[in-house]
Amino acid sequence: MLLSGGLDSYTAAAIARDQGFDLYALTVRYGQLHARELVAARHVSDALGVRDRLELSVDLAAVGGSALTGGTPVPKDRELDKGEIPPTYVPARNTVLLSLALAWAEVLGSQDIFIGVNALDYSGYPDCRPEFVQAFERLAALATKAGVEGQPLCVHTPLIDWSKAEIIRRGVALGVDYGLTHSCYDPAPDGRPCSRCDSCRLRARGFEEAGLPDPVFT
Amino acid sequence: MLLSGGLDSYTAAAIARDQGFDLYALTVRYGQLHARELVAARHVSDALGVRDRLELSVDLAAVGGSALTGGTPVPKDRELDKGEIPPTYVPARNTVLLSLALAWAEVLGSQDIFIGVNALDYSGYPDCRPEFVQAFERLAALATKAGVEGQPLCVHTPLIDWSKAEIIRRGVALGVDYGLTHSCYDPAPDGRPCSRCDSCRLRARGFEEAGLPDPVFT
Repeated sequence: MLLSGGLDSYTAAAIARDQGFDLYALTVRYGQLHARELVAARHVSDALGVRDRLELSVDLAAVGGSALTGGTPVPKDRELDKGEIPPTYVPARNTVLLSLALAWAEVLGSQDIFIGVNALDYSGYPDCRPEFVQAFERLAALATKAGVEGQPLCVHTPLIDWSKAEIIRRGVALGVDYGLTHSCYDPAPDGRPCSRCDSCRLRARGFEEAGLPDPVFT
Repeated sequence: MLLSGGLDSYTAAAIARDQGFDLYALTVRYGQLHARELVAARHVSDALGVRDRLELSVDLAAVGGSALTGGTPVPKDRELDKGEIPPTYVPARNTVLLSLALAWAEVLGSQDIFIGVNALDYSGYPDCRPEFVQAFERLAALATKAGVEGQPLCVHTPLIDWSKAEIIRRGVALGVDYGLTHSCYDPAPDGRPCSRCDSCRLRARGFEEAGLPDPVFT
């Protein structure tokens, strides 16, 4: 599974574990300014008891085009749910992440990738939509030795149509510790979340709607 | 365009230039043992007069599963044209390369990627086939902001059904200098080609069939 250190991918991984999968965590250092999420990903991997974890680096900051990799400021207090693609969109990011996961899955002999994409709370990102995921599955069947040999790949997206509150409730029911996670796109130097970027505000709204306190602040 | 430093991608780039495209060269250091091809890619970029070049690194050697990244020995004197997938197959490599090219293309505002894949002389690699390339184009239309906004991506594969001899003849006609290129999967420490890996032998056969000397040996 792809594990960022955020709330969604941890929940998706907990669901995979609950379904009986052995977990292999791939975390990608892609040039995100909020590299603190990579530390969180290590803690989350430990909490999940993964079989193995792999961290790969690819410098999408050199490619540019995103606020998350330093191209422009991270927007604050933006109107949520506008449906437009925000400046935090990273060009082709999920295509890059899934292609790396595809490579490792093939080497591991796995036919299952879990990714915590969510089309509802991130409606602006084109590469979080079901039609994108389905197109990736079709590509994977043609791209790899495993695919050609008749082992199709399934990209599991258990959160794709859930609200953030539903994700949190499900995670808590599965015993995930959201205190280990990091969501903020633009944290303070000491790692504290800014509370004003889209990611902070979607997270806060999710905990509020779930009627639960966010353990990061307790 | 994706530029490896080998013969095919240089020819594909020369064809793009001949068609009037401005060239932006993406070279990926993916953990290949024959890193000498990266030096060749720089020389080829200079010879092509590219507008810009970008070198990205992603460690597919850590993912494993290929002779090209050190997992197993590079096979020598293997029967060519057997149609089976050789140990030099790198899991999901072209998916990774195209996804990185897709990211840069979107940032550049380009709708055209050139890749020197060839389904004939490399019939064993699943990710060199037309159906793979078409599936990637379908994915790209759904993956990016540009795609969603109605700017479809075209993946150009001018060499896909050419023999190596045809590639070489066309390249020579376009003035490419194959003396700059590196093809060998397992070069000697001084960079000299081994002459026994698939890549060396396909290259030698291509020059022989084209009735031309390989400038690397002159």
